[in-house]
Amino acid sequence: MKQRIDNNAFPYPMPMVLVGSIVNGQPNFMAAAWVTRVNIHPPLLAIALGAHLTNQGIRDGKEFSINVPGVSLVEKTDYCGLFSGAKIDKSAIFKVHYGEWKNAPLIEECPVTMACRLFQSVQLPDHELFIGQIMEAYCDSAYLSDGKPDIKKINPFTLTMPDNRYWSVGEAAGKAWSAGVGLRKTQQK
Amino acid sequence: MKQRIDNNAFPYPMPMVLVGSIVNGQPNFMAAAWVTRVNIHPPLLAIALGAHLTNQGIRDGKEFSINVPGVSLVEKTDYCGLFSGAKIDKSAIFKVHYGEWKNAPLIEECPVTMACRLFQSVQLPDHELFIGQIMEAYCDSAYLSDGKPDIKKINPFTLTMPDNRYWSVGEAAGKAWSAGVGLRKTQQK
Repeated sequence: MKQRIDNNAFPYPMPMVLVGSIVNGQPNFMAAAWVTRVNIHPPLLAIALGAHLTNQGIRDGKEFSINVPGVSLVEKTDYCGLFSGAKIDKSAIFKVHYGEWKNAPLIEECPVTMACRLFQSVQLPDHELFIGQIMEAYCDSAYLSDGKPDIKKINPFTLTMPDNRYWSVGEAAGKAWSAGVGLRKTQQK
Repeated sequence: MKQRIDNNAFPYPMPMVLVGSIVNGQPNFMAAAWVTRVNIHPPLLAIALGAHLTNQGIRDGKEFSINVPGVSLVEKTDYCGLFSGAKIDKSAIFKVHYGEWKNAPLIEECPVTMACRLFQSVQLPDHELFIGQIMEAYCDSAYLSDGKPDIKKINPFTLTMPDNRYWSVGEAAGKAWSAGVGLRKTQQK
């Protein structure tokens, strides 16, 4: 039986990332899960942030990074979500490197990293939606299969709210744009 | 070693949902994975859609639904992603019910459903970002634990691109806003 639940509801589950920016000349990282791709050409992604130090970093530097951590980085990722860069120096928690975009610090330990240039921002009532264009993307060769990032090697993790838990990725559940082909005949009028 | 990959990169993994709207007086559903929460008060979520029939339904009806399917709905979800409502009548594929919002058809078979009122839309180069306020949310009692949606009961699935695969949710990987507390001492300067 359907029950009403709190309107503060969520997609299940949400991908965890680390957002990198330069704040006061130092790389800073925050944990975030409200992130999604939003456009194909150019490749845009959007990340919604409350009032964080990172917002200022993105506004000033016009760039940011999206870093996909694996399960082995749960503790460090959560740490970056717990404590603000205003109180804690997070610049040394990861090894950092840079591609062409010097305000988008990339995390060496993260299997997949992207440098984004700020494309547009949308002010919402209590969050700011930063839409960035992916200018460079990297994957460690250890996490590639046939030249593409392999999720079982990346071993990323997701978040559920409001129970606030992280989850690994499970088993293959089907091939997209394929699994439903067979229904065409039975559903066609 | 870090390798450049295609800039058309993605978060890992992305939550699969079914977006419901009323098109030409009939409920219509499409599969989508470019979805995220974007604001707390009011509870807003955003979904990025290419040129789909659903866009017109949302623009006309000013409402839409977000439905979280379980793994048992992989085939039907994929079917809704493969074939446009312009060519196929998808109104009978699910049992549909409505709460207070009559342009937000809710899928009976989906463990978690949300009715959203269009809050704002943002035109991007090839996608339209629909930001909706969650006005009602439902969960079947069979999928609740302690009154909250339980991801292991919901058994949702995610999408990876560009390999186009669906994935179930795996094991618990830690408690958010908690797992990183212990690092505070070692990292503090």
